[in-house]
Amino acid sequence: MKDELGAFVPHVDCVVQGARTGPLAGLSFAAKDLFAVAGYRTGGGNPDWERTHPPARRHAWAVQALLDAGATLVGKTITDEISLGLIGRNQFYGTPINPKAPDRVPGGSSSGSAAAVAGGLVDTALGTDSGGSVRTPASFCGLYGLRPTHGRIPVEGMDTQSPTFDTCGWLAADAETFVRVGEVLLQAKASEVRPAELLIATDCFGIAVPEVQSALATVVERLSGASGQRREVELGEGDLPAWWENQRKLQMGEFGKTFRPWVERVVPRFSIEVGRSLTLASLLTEDELEGPKAFRAKARARLEGLLGADKVLCLPTTPILPPLRNESFTQLTTAVGRIIELTCIAGLTGLPQVNLPLGNYRGIPVGLSLIGWRGSDEVLLGLAKALA
Amino acid sequence: MKDELGAFVPHVDCVVQGARTGPLAGLSFAAKDLFAVAGYRTGGGNPDWERTHPPARRHAWAVQALLDAGATLVGKTITDEISLGLIGRNQFYGTPINPKAPDRVPGGSSSGSAAAVAGGLVDTALGTDSGGSVRTPASFCGLYGLRPTHGRIPVEGMDTQSPTFDTCGWLAADAETFVRVGEVLLQAKASEVRPAELLIATDCFGIAVPEVQSALATVVERLSGASGQRREVELGEGDLPAWWENQRKLQMGEFGKTFRPWVERVVPRFSIEVGRSLTLASLLTEDELEGPKAFRAKARARLEGLLGADKVLCLPTTPILPPLRNESFTQLTTAVGRIIELTCIAGLTGLPQVNLPLGNYRGIPVGLSLIGWRGSDEVLLGLAKALA
Repeated sequence: MKDELGAFVPHVDCVVQGARTGPLAGLSFAAKDLFAVAGYRTGGGNPDWERTHPPARRHAWAVQALLDAGATLVGKTITDEISLGLIGRNQFYGTPINPKAPDRVPGGSSSGSAAAVAGGLVDTALGTDSGGSVRTPASFCGLYGLRPTHGRIPVEGMDTQSPTFDTCGWLAADAETFVRVGEVLLQAKASEVRPAELLIATDCFGIAVPEVQSALATVVERLSGASGQRREVELGEGDLPAWWENQRKLQMGEFGKTFRPWVERVVPRFSIEVGRSLTLASLLTEDELEGPKAFRAKARARLEGLLGADKVLCLPTTPILPPLRNESFTQLTTAVGRIIELTCIAGLTGLPQVNLPLGNYRGIPVGLSLIGWRGSDEVLLGLAKALA
Repeated sequence: MKDELGAFVPHVDCVVQGARTGPLAGLSFAAKDLFAVAGYRTGGGNPDWERTHPPARRHAWAVQALLDAGATLVGKTITDEISLGLIGRNQFYGTPINPKAPDRVPGGSSSGSAAAVAGGLVDTALGTDSGGSVRTPASFCGLYGLRPTHGRIPVEGMDTQSPTFDTCGWLAADAETFVRVGEVLLQAKASEVRPAELLIATDCFGIAVPEVQSALATVVERLSGASGQRREVELGEGDLPAWWENQRKLQMGEFGKTFRPWVERVVPRFSIEVGRSLTLASLLTEDELEGPKAFRAKARARLEGLLGADKVLCLPTTPILPPLRNESFTQLTTAVGRIIELTCIAGLTGLPQVNLPLGNYRGIPVGLSLIGWRGSDEVLLGLAKALA
């Protein structure tokens, strides 16, 4: 396949024909190079990871599910190294082009999956989302994308990053494909149920840059019209920063543990941004995680109390526009910090979040997000379709 | 040249004929890939460094000095990435073999220079020493090596790491070659002056592992016999750890500043150990360097008071044996910390230190060091010759 976007792992040629019939018959898909494809090494966006892991013996659950449903796998897509990143920059294999904003990054870590879908190279693509890795590139590349309820879609055969945060998601350019694929992965039909109330997270909108605020203002108006009651809430009760600070520590604590034995053994090469993340993770002590664990319980209770089993929370997917490709290390590190300010919410609580590609600022995609109650994934699917 | 030791930069073929006559006529030398060689890119042990720097327009001062004296440059040698390391491990270009202890690391960062000299591939080799990068591989590979008085040998054309620590040194397998090369680089004859007193740093010997202590015990006896008065002193006055803690911070503060603009712009790839060092450096604040700066002044006064202008301090070059090649990341990081416990002394004070390859433990080289007063480099040369 011609890949002018640099979305696919350049040295791997990986095609697996899907079943002849099924709900996804005729569709093509790509899988982030964090999913096992039988017979191939999972590269994880890092040559030392690829080199030190054997070829997979079977397909990841999600890959198998799409194949069984009739979709054909046409390639493995680039990921931020070992899934640690939200920008989509890979210093070994290149940074995929964002087809909707070529001078800006595609977002990550499911960067190649988003670029491939947004550029029309595939109909859909699998991604992983631990701290925002499906939602961010979906927002930056103008795609539908779901981070499911934690535990809802099996992560078998997907490289582990942070077990209590890891989820398997997917991306699509239109609502119809998004729903078709989602029904296979969720093993459930999109729901006709509509939320009783739309909660507008004023503090989440408040921390967004003016460009994001203005791009989403009219979208929120339209949404409110289509979804009954609307109410403004302050999610963080005055302390939204505590959400991301605690989420950041918990996730670092987990991925630090995940990668430590391999780092010890292999002493791998990384871009400085990943070296930095792993180093900061290694400095965290178990004691420092006690507070964040308690905070997570409170955050879950807070959001579950707000949403009950019939409300959804509306917020910007990211508080910033996609950064320019040529920004410096510090600028991009700062951008990652800002993205986590909002992606942390579903990460910390394990609730499902859908990115709706309904906004734009001078042509640059700006995603709007809905977070649903636990297990409401098919309601979010139904909403995405209704609002398209 | 056949390079079974992996001492030379594999992708660079760099030969420069020396002058027809001169004090080093007929000798061959190698230069650590931190020294400019006209027409070649200085690689710094890292592919992103090499890629983002233009070819050198002229030779480094030390390279030119050796060429003018008749020695012929036969290649560039491997260094720890951007000179940050004391182990000699390079995850991009390989870890040179230590010819004297093949299952152990060669020491770094002048790893390839030490391996090439110890393996007889060249007569001498240039190295750099900011925190121990000549002394450590000299000790591990059983070579003579000098870290000169800071500022004594011009560092022009040598990549900067930490300006107040950076020095240009060299390595040789025998005292005669060591002195011949040293006389060129120091622009002075080896001195016949003998120190009035040999000060045995009991606390420095005290922190060494038993293998190093036993390997050096008889050497120190022999030395004492050959050098007049002998006196035991406690260098650190009960707080030797403060020396390395302060040196570590000062050096990190400096190399953090040196590499920051390049890291910002290039977002380079490093092995995790270098990513870790640069990350820790980036966390240091200017305020945290005030104490170490004051400590350095005190340490200098302390050592200059002890040495006056006629005494030398005797200590193990490193408190440990060369680590095994297959040790883990954490084990090697711990080893680096231990090495700095003793290499910090000359680094912090800017005084010259010679490694004498006079000890061994079951065949594994164990170096003994002499630190002289400021500017006594040619006295250390003379001593090395006398004690050989």
